[in-house]
Amino acid sequence: MTKIAYLGPEASFTHLAAKSLFPSESLVPMRTIPECIEAVSQVKVDVAVVPVENALEGTVPLTIDYLFHEADVYIQAEVLAPIAQHLMVHPDHVAHWDQVETIYSHPHALAQCHKYLSYRLPHVPMEQYSSTAAAAKLCAENPDMSIAAIANETAAHEYGLVIVERDIHDFHFNHTRFLVLGSEKNQLTFKGHQPQIKTTWMLKLPQDDRPGLLHQVLSVFAWRRLNLSKIESRPLKTGLGHYFFIVDILEQEDHVMMRGAEEELTFLGCTVKSLGSYTTYETESD
Amino acid sequence: MTKIAYLGPEASFTHLAAKSLFPSESLVPMRTIPECIEAVSQVKVDVAVVPVENALEGTVPLTIDYLFHEADVYIQAEVLAPIAQHLMVHPDHVAHWDQVETIYSHPHALAQCHKYLSYRLPHVPMEQYSSTAAAAKLCAENPDMSIAAIANETAAHEYGLVIVERDIHDFHFNHTRFLVLGSEKNQLTFKGHQPQIKTTWMLKLPQDDRPGLLHQVLSVFAWRRLNLSKIESRPLKTGLGHYFFIVDILEQEDHVMMRGAEEELTFLGCTVKSLGSYTTYETESD
Repeated sequence: MTKIAYLGPEASFTHLAAKSLFPSESLVPMRTIPECIEAVSQVKVDVAVVPVENALEGTVPLTIDYLFHEADVYIQAEVLAPIAQHLMVHPDHVAHWDQVETIYSHPHALAQCHKYLSYRLPHVPMEQYSSTAAAAKLCAENPDMSIAAIANETAAHEYGLVIVERDIHDFHFNHTRFLVLGSEKNQLTFKGHQPQIKTTWMLKLPQDDRPGLLHQVLSVFAWRRLNLSKIESRPLKTGLGHYFFIVDILEQEDHVMMRGAEEELTFLGCTVKSLGSYTTYETESD
Repeated sequence: MTKIAYLGPEASFTHLAAKSLFPSESLVPMRTIPECIEAVSQVKVDVAVVPVENALEGTVPLTIDYLFHEADVYIQAEVLAPIAQHLMVHPDHVAHWDQVETIYSHPHALAQCHKYLSYRLPHVPMEQYSSTAAAAKLCAENPDMSIAAIANETAAHEYGLVIVERDIHDFHFNHTRFLVLGSEKNQLTFKGHQPQIKTTWMLKLPQDDRPGLLHQVLSVFAWRRLNLSKIESRPLKTGLGHYFFIVDILEQEDHVMMRGAEEELTFLGCTVKSLGSYTTYETESD
């Protein structure tokens, strides 16, 4: 049986994404993103599912940085899942939910509901918690405390909480991208929507960061009409102003134009770390 | 007397940065980054100091996103400060500090010390807290709890804690950039190191995101030899795959080449939101 690690705990958004792709496999929750990636790297599991980007909050830095600096694993598939945040309380507090004394959730979830919270519950302190599901668990286990959690519907069911306000995230288009990581290059395929092919490269530019170098790097892609669906910079951790770039290209890595691009980038002094080609799926869950 | 808002509480890294630029002004701590920016926007204070980028953790999303989406304020100066993280406990726990049951700090500080913590104290749970200084305060106020905080030296002094391990951040080049924001364009100058001039623009590309458009945008800068010290993408919050770009250009905004660049970018369909030109300083403080 295939073993799938995911960023836990149970009922986290990553758990939902993992279940949508692997409904009948053995799903193993991990405490942190590095633990998920190490489990794959050491072949303790077959694949791991981790969040990589939210439409509102942007990239998950720990995922990108760990893939660049610490591990040699590959993206085998990607799944896009809608994220709906709800405000929930213990059943004892439903009648007076707007008088809760503290709201617990993951920092990203609190940020995604920032406007709702500042208009609707401006004087209620927020406390950052390690995950939305852990915040829901805290509410469930402490009925004596007048607290609320922001989490998904599955977490409400799992921990016996009552949703008192639905869909409190500030922007409608709230999706998260999750990566399915494996220890080798391998394009996983799933039934469902027509998949999109993508390749992810991490580019380190040469040390002599001459003006216009990034423009020259982009020229390599532009004249070949290789479409970048994303380009993002992350710090190299060697000092302010030193970055590496993550580019997502809508093409198979073994395409003749991609092989030419990689050769020219290397000639320009760039280091290309490939995370492989993979297919992208959308899910409707939660 | 000039009134300076900063991201508090007292003894936070932002407080140290603000003090280094404004040693004898009235410094007012705020609870959140949006509160700092709103205080400037509503002219309740003269300027506000907020963190914008750490050399290890990257951009502070809330600062960038709030400046783009919510406020019309300008950068009047920038300061770079080194960040040193220390592990500290209440004096009662010094003898057995390696047996603490929980370590509290800001999520960025925990991330900056990720390797140290996983090698040295692998089984000690970490709890995210709203700031490094607040974590230090928690330790000081709860001598009965066997806990530690990760924070700066000033916080240890301020709250009477003992540093048991110094400089536990994983990478040596740990600096943070702080912005001094005001309600109008105005280049503040300070004594000290030779300042560097920069201009920050936020670029929204046209809706028809044709392949190679970013390359064309960078051409506007490249042929003019305008040096970009930074380019970064952030989600537009209108759906995955939609981004705006923050570019830092090493030139005064009123330079003839900059005016030409802005005209051409506008002609290409880009929206240019300028945060103004400003000078950059380095500080040596803790």
